Amino acid sequence: MTTADWIAVDWGTTHLRAWAMGADGTPRAAAASDAGMATLARDGFEPALLALVAPWLRTGEVTPVLACGMVGSRQGWVEAAYRAVPCVPLEAGGLTPAPVRDPRLSVRVIPGLKQANHPDVMRGEETQIAGFLSREPQFDGVLCLPGTHTKWVRISAGEAVSFQTFMTGEMFALLADHSVLRHTVGKGWDDEAFATALDDALSRPDRLAARLFSLRAEALLSGLDPATARARLSGALIGAELAAAKPYWLGQEVAVIGAEGIASAYAAALARTGSAPRVADGDAMTLAGLTAAHALMQETTR
Amino acid sequence: MTTADWIAVDWGTTHLRAWAMGADGTPRAAAASDAGMATLARDGFEPALLALVAPWLRTGEVTPVLACGMVGSRQGWVEAAYRAVPCVPLEAGGLTPAPVRDPRLSVRVIPGLKQANHPDVMRGEETQIAGFLSREPQFDGVLCLPGTHTKWVRISAGEAVSFQTFMTGEMFALLADHSVLRHTVGKGWDDEAFATALDDALSRPDRLAARLFSLRAEALLSGLDPATARARLSGALIGAELAAAKPYWLGQEVAVIGAEGIASAYAAALARTGSAPRVADGDAMTLAGLTAAHALMQETTR
Repeated sequence: MTTADWIAVDWGTTHLRAWAMGADGTPRAAAASDAGMATLARDGFEPALLALVAPWLRTGEVTPVLACGMVGSRQGWVEAAYRAVPCVPLEAGGLTPAPVRDPRLSVRVIPGLKQANHPDVMRGEETQIAGFLSREPQFDGVLCLPGTHTKWVRISAGEAVSFQTFMTGEMFALLADHSVLRHTVGKGWDDEAFATALDDALSRPDRLAARLFSLRAEALLSGLDPATARARLSGALIGAELAAAKPYWLGQEVAVIGAEGIASAYAAALARTGSAPRVADGDAMTLAGLTAAHALMQETTR
Repeated sequence: MTTADWIAVDWGTTHLRAWAMGADGTPRAAAASDAGMATLARDGFEPALLALVAPWLRTGEVTPVLACGMVGSRQGWVEAAYRAVPCVPLEAGGLTPAPVRDPRLSVRVIPGLKQANHPDVMRGEETQIAGFLSREPQFDGVLCLPGTHTKWVRISAGEAVSFQTFMTGEMFALLADHSVLRHTVGKGWDDEAFATALDDALSRPDRLAARLFSLRAEALLSGLDPATARARLSGALIGAELAAAKPYWLGQEVAVIGAEGIASAYAAALARTGSAPRVADGDAMTLAGLTAAHALMQETTR
C-alpha cells in the first residue's frame, strides 16, 4: 500500500489534485477530483482533501501537506496573504497553516503574489515559478504562463520583479462558447490561419475589436471553416496579447510554462516575433515548486 | 376599438414589437412580447404575430405588415436575402413575402445588407438607416448604431457605402456578467472614470488586453468601487472600438442612432475625439424606416 512522506496539492478554482510524495522527491501516487475551491464552503476543504489522500496517511504520524492555488484565497480554506513583488516566489514565513481536525494532517498553503503599481495578483503561478527557478536558479528573463489568465513575469536574481495578467484564455472561451461566434467557431485547428491572424494582430493590435465579428460574417457569406475560425480567433487574441506584452518579451530570454497545447501555441506565436522560447511543462513545474516549498519548510523546522 | 391601416413590426433575436399604424403615419397602439426569433420554429412566427396583432385586424380585409430584423434570417420566418452594399438601405424588390395562412395578413420582410470585401452583415439596422435618411435625405457622413453589435456605416448620396460591425456590447455583457470580472463590476456609473478609461484606450488601443484583469486586481487589493469598475470597463471597450473605427469617424459628420443610455455614452465618447455627433432615437428610426418601407410598397403596387 502506498504511503506518503508528504503530500503535494494543487488546488484551483475548479480542480483538486494531490500527489503522494516519496522521501526521494518523486511522486508515488496521484489522485484528483473536481472539488475545486469554488465548490466548497470553508469547512468543506478538509473532507475534500481526506477523500483523496486518506489512503496515503499513517495512523499515529503527521503527514505534511503543501498546497498551492486558489485554496489560499479569501474564499478558500485559509487566506494566505499575498506577498508583494519584487520578492522571491517562495518564502518559509509566508507558508500559511490551514486549520485541521484530523491529527494525521499538517497543512500549509503557499501565498500568491501581488503588485501595487499596475495592480495585479497571482495565485498558483508563484509555485510554478519557484519550481522553474529550483531547476534554473540563474535564469534571468521573462516567464510566460499561459492559461485562463495568462501571466507574464520578469525574473531577475531569483526574484519575481513585476508581472502582468491577460484574460486571453477566458476571453477565448467566452467568445467561442457563449457569444454569437459560437455558431462559427468549431473544433479543430489550422496552423496557417493561426499564423496569419497572429501576424495581423501583432502588426495592427488596435484593430482587435474590428476582427471578431468578421468571422461570423464570413461564415454566413462564404462558409468559413469552423476549424479555421477557431485558429483565427485564437491568433487574433494571442496576437493582441503579445502586442500589449511587448515590453515583457522584447529582447528578453523567454520561457513558456504551461500545458502542452496552449504552451506550444504561445511558443509558436513568440517564435513569429523572432523569439526562441523554451517550453516547460506546467504540471512538472507545479510539482517542483511544491517540492521546493516542502524543502523550505523542512529547513526552517529542522 | 383600435384597428390598423398597416402594422409595423420590429422582430429581433429576443423580442417582438408591433405597432398599429394609422393612415396619417402615426402609431395608434403598440404591443410587445418576448417571442423573439430564437424562440420560434418556422411555423411559430404567424401565431406569435397574431397573438399580438389580431385585435387590430378587420375581417374581410387584408392588413399589410412590414417587418424588419432577424425575422428575415435563415432561421427566421422567411429568409430575406442580404442585399450587397453599396446600395440604398431599402428597395421595393427586396421586400420578401412571408408565407401566411390567415387571409387577413400580408407580410413583407425587409432584407439585411451584406458586404463582400471585409465581410460583414446587418439585419435591422438597414431599417433604422432608411428611417434616418427618410428624414434627412441629404445626409452625407457616418452613422453609428450602437447595441449588442455596433455598426458603423458610411452614407453617401442616399446609399449605404460600406460598414463595419463591432461586438463591443456583447463583449461588455460577457465580461461584466460571465467572466472573473463579474465579482468586480457592479451597478452604477462614474462619468469621470469612463472618460479617463476612454482616453487611455484611444491613445493606447493596443493595450486593451492588458487593461481588463487590472480591474479585478484593483478590486482585490484596494476595493475598487463597482460602479467605477463598470464605467472603466465600458470606457476601455468603447475606446478600443473608437480607435479601430477611426477610418469611419475621422473628419466626418457623425450621427448616433440608438437607445438613450448607450447612444449618449457613444456620443460622449465621440465628443472626446472632437466630434460633435447628433443623436437620434433608435425606436423612432425603426418606425420611420418601416414607414418608408410601407410607402415604398404602396408606390410599387399602386
